[in-house]
Amino acid sequence: MSLPVERPHVDPDNKTTMELQAVLPLTAKVEDGHLFIGGVDMVELAHQVGTAVYVMDEEHIRKQLRDYLEWTRFHWKNVDVAFAGKAFMSVAMCRIVEQEGCHLDVSSGGELFFAQKAGFPMERIICHGNNKTPQELQEALDARVGRIVVDSFEELRRINEYAIERDMKQPVLIRVTPGIIADTHVYIQTGAEDSKFGFGMRDGLAMEAVKRAIALPGIEFMGIHMHIGSQIFTLTSFAKAIEVIVHFMDEVYEETGVFVQELDTGGGLGIAYGAPDQPSSIKQYGKVVVDDIKEHCLAHRIPVPRILIEPGRSVVANAGVTLYTVGTVKSIPNVRTYVAVDGGMTDNIRTALYDAKYEAVVANKADQPRSTVVTIAGKHCESGDIVIHDAPLQPAEVGDIICVFTTGAYCHSMSSNYNTQVRPGVYMVKDGQARCVVRRETYDDLLMCEIFD
Amino acid sequence: MSLPVERPHVDPDNKTTMELQAVLPLTAKVEDGHLFIGGVDMVELAHQVGTAVYVMDEEHIRKQLRDYLEWTRFHWKNVDVAFAGKAFMSVAMCRIVEQEGCHLDVSSGGELFFAQKAGFPMERIICHGNNKTPQELQEALDARVGRIVVDSFEELRRINEYAIERDMKQPVLIRVTPGIIADTHVYIQTGAEDSKFGFGMRDGLAMEAVKRAIALPGIEFMGIHMHIGSQIFTLTSFAKAIEVIVHFMDEVYEETGVFVQELDTGGGLGIAYGAPDQPSSIKQYGKVVVDDIKEHCLAHRIPVPRILIEPGRSVVANAGVTLYTVGTVKSIPNVRTYVAVDGGMTDNIRTALYDAKYEAVVANKADQPRSTVVTIAGKHCESGDIVIHDAPLQPAEVGDIICVFTTGAYCHSMSSNYNTQVRPGVYMVKDGQARCVVRRETYDDLLMCEIFD
Repeated sequence: MSLPVERPHVDPDNKTTMELQAVLPLTAKVEDGHLFIGGVDMVELAHQVGTAVYVMDEEHIRKQLRDYLEWTRFHWKNVDVAFAGKAFMSVAMCRIVEQEGCHLDVSSGGELFFAQKAGFPMERIICHGNNKTPQELQEALDARVGRIVVDSFEELRRINEYAIERDMKQPVLIRVTPGIIADTHVYIQTGAEDSKFGFGMRDGLAMEAVKRAIALPGIEFMGIHMHIGSQIFTLTSFAKAIEVIVHFMDEVYEETGVFVQELDTGGGLGIAYGAPDQPSSIKQYGKVVVDDIKEHCLAHRIPVPRILIEPGRSVVANAGVTLYTVGTVKSIPNVRTYVAVDGGMTDNIRTALYDAKYEAVVANKADQPRSTVVTIAGKHCESGDIVIHDAPLQPAEVGDIICVFTTGAYCHSMSSNYNTQVRPGVYMVKDGQARCVVRRETYDDLLMCEIFD
Repeated sequence: MSLPVERPHVDPDNKTTMELQAVLPLTAKVEDGHLFIGGVDMVELAHQVGTAVYVMDEEHIRKQLRDYLEWTRFHWKNVDVAFAGKAFMSVAMCRIVEQEGCHLDVSSGGELFFAQKAGFPMERIICHGNNKTPQELQEALDARVGRIVVDSFEELRRINEYAIERDMKQPVLIRVTPGIIADTHVYIQTGAEDSKFGFGMRDGLAMEAVKRAIALPGIEFMGIHMHIGSQIFTLTSFAKAIEVIVHFMDEVYEETGVFVQELDTGGGLGIAYGAPDQPSSIKQYGKVVVDDIKEHCLAHRIPVPRILIEPGRSVVANAGVTLYTVGTVKSIPNVRTYVAVDGGMTDNIRTALYDAKYEAVVANKADQPRSTVVTIAGKHCESGDIVIHDAPLQPAEVGDIICVFTTGAYCHSMSSNYNTQVRPGVYMVKDGQARCVVRRETYDDLLMCEIFD
């Protein structure tokens, strides 16, 4: 199986980076024992800007977006790729997405606001959420967003009302839960019938929603949305859901005489967190999704719709790393060694929340074999604050720079100020340059909302 | 068994509040079908200030602090109570802690900064953390904090160095892991030998740390710290740990000739999240902890030390509630009903992270029985974003105000901006008045660290 991303800079003589290939950012390489990303020395960067810090490989991000465009449009011209902003939201990211000609998913009024501030074209925005507030819906309509994905009858009613008030028709997709249980963590399975999202098909609610959307004067029914979950390794779940959903599109035509013009199949392609992980590639994903839609449409004799896909994690996760400094090393004889770093569950809740596995290296010893097994612990007052349990690692000493891979998705975006800890900044690296795209918080920032009186 | 907090305002004729007694804030009562806390109508407050919002019962917080002081000092005069700031940190909280004559635990430089800004007396500060950064240690020394709890040899070395540079002696406690497995969630067990925290006793490291602390010129050895974990229901774990630790104090005297002047037994008293939960009371806790220390000291013929205790959760958890507005109600026939609210995993990660259970009522129907069972879902784009699974609740409709109890600890402090969601404000209620102590974030606040160029 081909790796989802080919890392051209990996030196075949360096055992450590060879074994880590699946999780490395595109431009990762080792020179004089130091890890470089985007041509930037991670050790030097850590010393310069301080730790903890997130680093994102800009070329990697751009390549993933281009691969999605290329390997879907290879099979069908009318495909658009929307980056799922919740995976990594920043003004700089919105601009990259815009420059690559992609669309953008927003999951809240806050994400829409970021996109607006970044100058993102509103017609390329897709608004999500199982419970968008009335304020958020009105903000979306006022911004003239391209699509709102409708999750409930209540929402349909509200959008219609607000659209009429504004003398407009809002283009929408109806979110349908195809009743497919994706092979992934239960927290990120979203396509099952028992879900807070969307309209179920079996109980006739999805069809009812489509009919109302077609009938309502403030609503422009554009098509169907589905999303079966996240971090999915086997493409069969996608194939099954597509079969079900195209069948539903046929029923829509039968019952309403309206062809579904657009089909948004959501996101969900898995990526490698661990070195041995073998997710499907974007190329394989593009083929399965697009070809299956075409094939089933042909069988049902309905027109192939415009296709939308919404990758998030697979665009940014492997592009990002987190750099930490080792503060203490605690060896408990016959038990384990704790290597404590200057970050943890505030900048990466995923280990505690999803039992996520990560890979790490000592960035200033990246040419050495990872000959020890340690637990990389955070600095927070909680035992659950572990970054990696039982991590293979080069022998670590106080002052070493630890690089944890695959932290580009859902780490910055889920970060917190627990323990009144300031959140790290984000640097984009490219062509030997590091540019700060999100600055580190200060103590004063954390006081911002406190009322003194 | 007596309830840990007696709620004097509960009407015995109101079945709902009677059954919820264990989780109610002290001043909770129902009038004309509305839930009141601190004399403030929660429904009116929600409409006035918007939702989601945290509300804290100030009297409840103060009563818990006073109970801790009273029921420990009843058994031994020389006891101090330090509130564990990580449970709920705000300037307003620091001031309440100060006014009640308590000490304050800080778990980071950020928390120390908050305490300073609140004008908290620095001699009553206890600094915690398994990996305090060099910067944080220097900030603590510069602030002249009362105690630093030392977690590693590296830290001892650093404190000594920084203290000598400043021509001072820093009073410290040595954190010892007594090797006791507390009966609680594994994430918040902290006293086991296999822990990132402190010095183990069995391997002789704790004794070595005490000896070095006594010998180092920049260090003033004050005593021993232990913390076996959090949300502990049965007091036997505390009793076991105290037995072990007093034995160690005796050994310290035998080996060094120094009496341990202070013993900090940490925090950890559990509270009721669910209506049937029966945690131990503060009164019982005070008796077990203080009497056991006295008894074992007597048996070992060593002086009874000054005792410090560090409650966090049990001071604020039941004092706090979260108010939400119902946005949608989704009934899936023969499966379940989802009641979606305008908050979720960003303001309360505990359901997803610890599988925590909560109780809720419809605040505008608080006199009605909780006759339905629903799942209260958040608004975030993630299936794991559930506030309460299978919650007994009054029949909920769009626009209802939901009150979730026991959110005063670790909800505000662990909150995030996932989905670029603004975080709620915090209101203290007392004597019919609501005062904003932390304001809600704005979209603009979330852009604060973004770099535009």
